[in-house]
Amino acid sequence: MEEVDNKQVIFKGYIKRLPEVTDMEIKVSKIKLKAPKGSGAFLVKNLYLSCDPYMRGRMRDFKYSYIPSFVPGQPLEGFGVSRVVDSDHPDFQPGDLLSLITGWEEYSLIHRTDQLRKIQPDDIPLSYHVGLLGMSGFTSYAGFFEVCSPKKGEYVFVSAACGAVGQLVGQLAKLHGCYVVGSAGTSQKIDLLKNKLGFDEAFNYKEEPDLKAALKRYFPQGIDIYFDNVGGEMLDAALLNMKIHGRIAVCGAVSQKDVSKPRGLYNWLNLITKRIRIEGFLQNDYLHLYPSFLEHVISNYKEGKIVYVEDMSEGLESAAAALVGIFSGKNVGKQVIRVAHE
Amino acid sequence: MEEVDNKQVIFKGYIKRLPEVTDMEIKVSKIKLKAPKGSGAFLVKNLYLSCDPYMRGRMRDFKYSYIPSFVPGQPLEGFGVSRVVDSDHPDFQPGDLLSLITGWEEYSLIHRTDQLRKIQPDDIPLSYHVGLLGMSGFTSYAGFFEVCSPKKGEYVFVSAACGAVGQLVGQLAKLHGCYVVGSAGTSQKIDLLKNKLGFDEAFNYKEEPDLKAALKRYFPQGIDIYFDNVGGEMLDAALLNMKIHGRIAVCGAVSQKDVSKPRGLYNWLNLITKRIRIEGFLQNDYLHLYPSFLEHVISNYKEGKIVYVEDMSEGLESAAAALVGIFSGKNVGKQVIRVAHE
Repeated sequence: MEEVDNKQVIFKGYIKRLPEVTDMEIKVSKIKLKAPKGSGAFLVKNLYLSCDPYMRGRMRDFKYSYIPSFVPGQPLEGFGVSRVVDSDHPDFQPGDLLSLITGWEEYSLIHRTDQLRKIQPDDIPLSYHVGLLGMSGFTSYAGFFEVCSPKKGEYVFVSAACGAVGQLVGQLAKLHGCYVVGSAGTSQKIDLLKNKLGFDEAFNYKEEPDLKAALKRYFPQGIDIYFDNVGGEMLDAALLNMKIHGRIAVCGAVSQKDVSKPRGLYNWLNLITKRIRIEGFLQNDYLHLYPSFLEHVISNYKEGKIVYVEDMSEGLESAAAALVGIFSGKNVGKQVIRVAHE
Repeated sequence: MEEVDNKQVIFKGYIKRLPEVTDMEIKVSKIKLKAPKGSGAFLVKNLYLSCDPYMRGRMRDFKYSYIPSFVPGQPLEGFGVSRVVDSDHPDFQPGDLLSLITGWEEYSLIHRTDQLRKIQPDDIPLSYHVGLLGMSGFTSYAGFFEVCSPKKGEYVFVSAACGAVGQLVGQLAKLHGCYVVGSAGTSQKIDLLKNKLGFDEAFNYKEEPDLKAALKRYFPQGIDIYFDNVGGEMLDAALLNMKIHGRIAVCGAVSQKDVSKPRGLYNWLNLITKRIRIEGFLQNDYLHLYPSFLEHVISNYKEGKIVYVEDMSEGLESAAAALVGIFSGKNVGKQVIRVAHE
């Protein structure tokens, strides 16, 4: 039976700080391009891998998270786009393109089919199935429509607005008739937000000595909806600038270098005086909405009303740096790793 | 025209700290027991006055609150039960008993009729119309049913549980089929919670060196609903002990001595991992539910399924101390001031 090299990105061991490149290493193992008979599994060739902030949590030795930790000595895993090479599963045939949870390696033997979707050949870029049409995009959709209760004409603030989730939140909000301001950390991202992604306004939080004052300047009338991807200081500043009955969806906390010592929130008394609702959420509580999400986003994308910015890293050798980069905002748009050309 | 003495509790001036007895003073002015012709007003004799934590906010010089500040040199005002003495308003006749917003004085000329209700003679104690059936009780009802989304069998934690709001929240939760634990600050209150108010468990937070550990002990399976009357350290400890999809209603922050320097919340990352919803609220957003509240509480009270604990202070001379006392938990149950015997 044919046995080939299988390049892998190995998780070296648990960390408490932000991920560093040296927390991962490239290893080449061997793999048979065959799904074992009776296994019910299928073997895929990985084409694209997704870099997501939640993966940091899987690098910690923390047994009570909503998702298990990575296994030291084994490849990382995450969302990807892959092509079936061989299958012992009746629903999957060689050649099938899938969006799924797969390994950070060239070939993976897949046993689990949760959060797996078949991709129909289409004029949408394949890599978008981990971004715009994948977990990132679905997080935007579920968070904005289900958690934020948006109304036409409302004032919406999005942090990490140029990121995988933020860029679609802003566009969904604009399509919904809202006024949208985004924050990001480089002038290139601010330019993208204003000139490509259609935000009404955008600002570089690194150039703002006082985030409370910055939000007051961009929202003199107050914020109806804050879609929070960063937590910490920005969340605290937003609390002070919400309108009465404002809503905050807490999606991520990428601002926090050490999640075991998060920055405190001090402006929580505004919760009462302004009757603010804050809600944390995870996209996988809303998976029943995936079909309507796909319909909504694909139709708007095909009409040219939604665009998507990707940051493509080439090859598994670049994977560790790509993942590490998202925690300092090095990526411009959704960070994807191309493992192999289609 | 008859002119009589009108003893008043005067607000001396704005404060930033907790209220002290010396922030108020007794003054005797004169008043004609007559509603001026053409004024549309009515003159009442005040019987009971309500001491409520929100009144602290009205003692600050803060123009952007949801409620205006008290006027230095004028009597305090708040919820009360009063009898109409004279009226230039077609809807009110001498002898009518009202629950309303009135002055901290023996007689008040009333111009406003918002949050005013006529009291039908009944076997319910008159003073309960500022407590069990007043703003306190309605806060419990609106907060518990509208903000906490309770389900039968859920685990509910109430802080300041023996107070005006907390004691009814716990009883409503028990009637709804929940398991209820309360916290309070004296052994007398713990005894009342367990032996009179029907809580499943209660603990003295002053005897707990670690609130996080205390909550873990009383809720080994986690908290579904936290009805928060105190904020600060207890709110932070609760965040760490919520169940997945837990809900927190933020009703008050009586733990905070200086609201301009609140204690930080550090456990907010749990919002995401546990998909927690926190919502601040004010009862006056829900006034359309007042009739169903009265029906629910009165019928349960008459069937003996709800009891209410009051702390009655005698006379306007005791008013300042009564108000100040609620911020250190001196009161046992709802703090009311009897201005005159019925």
